[in-house]
Amino acid sequence: MKPTILSAPHPRSLELIFTAKRLAQLRDSYEVIEVSEDEIANLSPQVLAQVRYIIGQPPLDHLLLEQLKQLKCIFNVESNLMDNMPYDTLFERGIHVVTTGAVFAQPVAELALGLALDLSRQITAAHQAFENGTEKWGLEGNPQAKLLFNSRVGMIGFGDLGKALATILTGFKPQIKIYDPWLPNSFLSGIGTPSSLEDIFDSSDMIFVLAAVTTENQHFINADLIARMPQGSSLVLLSRAEVIDFPALINAVEKGHITAASDVWPLEPMPADHPVRQLPGFLKSAHRAGALQQCFEDMGEMVWEDLQLLDRGLPPLVCKRAQRETASKMQSKPVSEN
Amino acid sequence: MKPTILSAPHPRSLELIFTAKRLAQLRDSYEVIEVSEDEIANLSPQVLAQVRYIIGQPPLDHLLLEQLKQLKCIFNVESNLMDNMPYDTLFERGIHVVTTGAVFAQPVAELALGLALDLSRQITAAHQAFENGTEKWGLEGNPQAKLLFNSRVGMIGFGDLGKALATILTGFKPQIKIYDPWLPNSFLSGIGTPSSLEDIFDSSDMIFVLAAVTTENQHFINADLIARMPQGSSLVLLSRAEVIDFPALINAVEKGHITAASDVWPLEPMPADHPVRQLPGFLKSAHRAGALQQCFEDMGEMVWEDLQLLDRGLPPLVCKRAQRETASKMQSKPVSEN
Amino acid sequence: MKPTILSAPHPRSLELIFTAKRLAQLRDSYEVIEVSEDEIANLSPQVLAQVRYIIGQPPLDHLLLEQLKQLKCIFNVESNLMDNMPYDTLFERGIHVVTTGAVFAQPVAELALGLALDLSRQITAAHQAFENGTEKWGLEGNPQAKLLFNSRVGMIGFGDLGKALATILTGFKPQIKIYDPWLPNSFLSGIGTPSSLEDIFDSSDMIFVLAAVTTENQHFINADLIARMPQGSSLVLLSRAEVIDFPALINAVEKGHITAASDVWPLEPMPADHPVRQLPGFLKSAHRAGALQQCFEDMGEMVWEDLQLLDRGLPPLVCKRAQRETASKMQSKPVSEN
Amino acid sequence: MKPTILSAPHPRSLELIFTAKRLAQLRDSYEVIEVSEDEIANLSPQVLAQVRYIIGQPPLDHLLLEQLKQLKCIFNVESNLMDNMPYDTLFERGIHVVTTGAVFAQPVAELALGLALDLSRQITAAHQAFENGTEKWGLEGNPQAKLLFNSRVGMIGFGDLGKALATILTGFKPQIKIYDPWLPNSFLSGIGTPSSLEDIFDSSDMIFVLAAVTTENQHFINADLIARMPQGSSLVLLSRAEVIDFPALINAVEKGHITAASDVWPLEPMPADHPVRQLPGFLKSAHRAGALQQCFEDMGEMVWEDLQLLDRGLPPLVCKRAQRETASKMQSKPVSEN
Repeated sequence: MKPTILSAPHPRSLELIFTAKRLAQLRDSYEVIEVSEDEIANLSPQVLAQVRYIIGQPPLDHLLLEQLKQLKCIFNVESNLMDNMPYDTLFERGIHVVTTGAVFAQPVAELALGLALDLSRQITAAHQAFENGTEKWGLEGNPQAKLLFNSRVGMIGFGDLGKALATILTGFKPQIKIYDPWLPNSFLSGIGTPSSLEDIFDSSDMIFVLAAVTTENQHFINADLIARMPQGSSLVLLSRAEVIDFPALINAVEKGHITAASDVWPLEPMPADHPVRQLPGFLKSAHRAGALQQCFEDMGEMVWEDLQLLDRGLPPLVCKRAQRETASKMQSKPVSEN
Repeated sequence: MKPTILSAPHPRSLELIFTAKRLAQLRDSYEVIEVSEDEIANLSPQVLAQVRYIIGQPPLDHLLLEQLKQLKCIFNVESNLMDNMPYDTLFERGIHVVTTGAVFAQPVAELALGLALDLSRQITAAHQAFENGTEKWGLEGNPQAKLLFNSRVGMIGFGDLGKALATILTGFKPQIKIYDPWLPNSFLSGIGTPSSLEDIFDSSDMIFVLAAVTTENQHFINADLIARMPQGSSLVLLSRAEVIDFPALINAVEKGHITAASDVWPLEPMPADHPVRQLPGFLKSAHRAGALQQCFEDMGEMVWEDLQLLDRGLPPLVCKRAQRETASKMQSKPVSEN
Repeated sequence: MKPTILSAPHPRSLELIFTAKRLAQLRDSYEVIEVSEDEIANLSPQVLAQVRYIIGQPPLDHLLLEQLKQLKCIFNVESNLMDNMPYDTLFERGIHVVTTGAVFAQPVAELALGLALDLSRQITAAHQAFENGTEKWGLEGNPQAKLLFNSRVGMIGFGDLGKALATILTGFKPQIKIYDPWLPNSFLSGIGTPSSLEDIFDSSDMIFVLAAVTTENQHFINADLIARMPQGSSLVLLSRAEVIDFPALINAVEKGHITAASDVWPLEPMPADHPVRQLPGFLKSAHRAGALQQCFEDMGEMVWEDLQLLDRGLPPLVCKRAQRETASKMQSKPVSEN
Repeated sequence: MKPTILSAPHPRSLELIFTAKRLAQLRDSYEVIEVSEDEIANLSPQVLAQVRYIIGQPPLDHLLLEQLKQLKCIFNVESNLMDNMPYDTLFERGIHVVTTGAVFAQPVAELALGLALDLSRQITAAHQAFENGTEKWGLEGNPQAKLLFNSRVGMIGFGDLGKALATILTGFKPQIKIYDPWLPNSFLSGIGTPSSLEDIFDSSDMIFVLAAVTTENQHFINADLIARMPQGSSLVLLSRAEVIDFPALINAVEKGHITAASDVWPLEPMPADHPVRQLPGFLKSAHRAGALQQCFEDMGEMVWEDLQLLDRGLPPLVCKRAQRETASKMQSKPVSEN
């Protein structure tokens, strides 16, 4: 008898996250019940009692959970934890809640480096000048150009994304300083120097903001910190706009103090007439860092590999497990579209 | 008695390539005679007979060279060898001719990667859309986005620049294929797979053209090769426009077959009304890849370190030596401005 | 009021695992109650109710556990899990059980490489010949010598030790094949090729056996597998003797089929008259791989860093967490002496 | 018409350095004249005038050299330059003299690391104790054990061997200090810290002596330097015994000040009754570090690749070129046997 999977992966879909071949294999090996989130409560007790895995992040209450007697793992393929299920009970019962957000680490890291190189070498601005026939040639075209090689890099937050970014920075031999209050020093050793926020903002040529939003860190990158940045240094924002005082960031660019790039915004989309749209020195991307077709298919592979482990009585290893202590602190808003 | 240096580094200057501190040290340790290139012939035989080093690439004929009895090394700080001195005689006499072009490897490699990431993720195009209020958000904004991670990278030419680029690509774990007819296979092993031009153009996601111009390779990247590139792949040109059929490259971008980026051009500057200026999918940079202030100062350091070795009777190691066999084949045009 | 630590780290001691300075800091920040394992039950209910952390692996029954109302984490500093506490209840209550065995990874990996290089180059045998005046010089002294560089390396088991070993092998650019049934393929990608046991024993120049003993894998490296090894290849055993058919290993060395090295033994110590003691081609070490003074102090640092995280309501990250699914499967015998 | 190779590779032979397949290819592509060194002078002027390449290091005088009108390259496959040909004339005429000594870098580096790990962990001594039934188990068997990880490593001399050793040490993340008076600082940057001899001997846990013998450095590692080494540190000698005060080294081991390992000796073989043979703490190898069958075949590949380049009018790149400035300073004794 095949194990049962309850599938409610909205806004993803099984077709988005699995290749055709893998999806066929999934349907072959499991009883896959596809439902919308609000239909779950209508399933018969017999069906619910058979469910071993859930793909998605549907709201679950205690009553429902009690009926899901064999549930072993919830695969949250959106990746931001919502406060819509009794996590304590899940942890007590040893039901894993895992997320597939690690797939976004590589594409976001690559965009982060692309934005940083653009700010360092004015790639976009020089291209626009070339289009307009106002380009400067050679040394004259490089007034603020700087190298990443051996430069002082600050990282704010160091999860999967930080690791992926540190990896692709390896060949640049950067001097990395890292701030992450959830991580012990030994965890960061060999990658960079654990540092205070103040130290990083005082002494970095390039700062990458990679911290997820939690109940504790909204707007923690404030105007005072930004004011400490060296003249001509740069900040690249990748995680969520809520972690930074966005108007202060815009202001620092307007004054010519720093240059900046961002993939995330206080409002998405930003108002059509917002002045940041025309602000020179502020490189703009419309929350595109992670949303690559290839990544969604990697999600399915992660789910598949952990299903194999779980079926053999082993713990999941590929997806990231939600933690009893921190699950309720995560506040990064889930996406409504892919 | 201090050793004598004849200094004629046009278009560089001693002030451009040495920090103030190092320049003072140079003047302290050596007799530095600063002349324009055409004044050298007017120097007295006594002075010429004292010259141990030349910084620059002034024209030298046999007569002059005979008078430079103690000459041990010519530091060509422009870096492209001109055909204005009797190299055979220099090599016979054991006079080193060295170039400082290696300083450009890192900045050019960094721009190369920046251009490649821009083409892979449409950084400039997405920024321009954001400015215009026509940006697409999330997955919708990423129709052609691709990852560099583990992608198929082709390198055409593999000198200092290739090495620097391969180094900063390390963290991307690319599958590198290399074409360089001057290098034996074992030299490339561990970095990439020595490959034919045809193989590289058939099967690369991203091609970097890094080959210097020689008497043998003008326009060797022809329309046929470009036509072999996979749909949607990209080419980044960094070395010299003469190595490629530039109209064919433009044409391939116009047709939507590939995307491209270039830092070098058949005419510099390009005509104001040249259609490539407005061509979407062709990222443009005005020969800015190497010309960073920081690099010019690195030149001076290279010269300084090799002066120390030469003074102790050792061969120069930091600058690159011109080779008897290939000196006359190098044809990359020297720059007239920095 | 200071949090309470119950300390029963036998056979370790607080003095062994903490530097004097850190131990002072520990006593300063925590109420440290030091007891022998069998005294715990005699502690008053008030004291037990205050205990937040346990350092050690004392036997705990349900009754005792119920009284340890505030217990958050058990630091097992011996590192092999014994079946002497109700793990299910611990996991249900969200009490972490963590081990510090990762400190042994580096020293064991270094000895593993040392043993492998010895087998590859006959370091010990050549030294003994030199002592006896029977040494052979140059090529004549290298009849079976082989390089590790680019050689075929097999790893059986891939936990912390495997990672440490793969790291110090990096510069050898080995072709690594890995067998670890508890790990998914993607976990191993970038390090080696996930492979079957048969494939590894068929085609490795050097096999490292690193697998912990579980309820499922005793003697899984049997005579048939050993018989598949290429003539002249080598096996290095580091984890536990129980995972291999030890007599078959000895036999293969006796026949001149392979060479071997081992740090672990079916009996420790081995009988004084056991023939393996005199067997040429079998390099012997007396369970010394991990027991370095420096490692014990690293244990204390790991405990200290995780205490800081736990005090702040964060999950432990430095020590390794026992898993609900696998805790009961671990069977590596704890050591009775350090 | 095939180019002519004069072959006199004593003490090597074509069969030693080429695989059968490559040797057939060589004979097919070239006219290979095999002679003993003293027969060369007897060859007819017509034959000598055809010779393009020499494999070996036969004595050549000016008269002979004049007759070798087309000579382009001498492949010294022994690798230590003897003072038996007029190097000045060779350099003047642009005839390359190249050596294949780089093949020994990897095997010597691997033995160096093996010896260092043996000294760090007493592998040989513990094995001998195990044979004698006097082994100590666990922590008790590790009184002087130390880790290489993150330890302070000194390198004396930094040619091909140093590079190979630094590469295989990468995963140990050592703190490397390097002394090499022929190399500028920038050459060493990224690998280690250029340092004085005194600094290295004062502050290294493990010193590797890798310097070739020159006219300038005999016995430069003297008793004073050795006396500076930290108690319990180690020295591994790989290059030539002439660079060190060997009796002082032995004395330091006898006193229990340091431990040492050596592959090279003041007399080879050492006298049968020399006390170093029985000296504990001194690990001994009989000049076996480089002489691996596999390396000799790599020599032939190096020669082959450079022949291909030279045939196409390009300079040799794989073998190492003798330098006008340093050729006459090299004094490492050639081997008389392989």
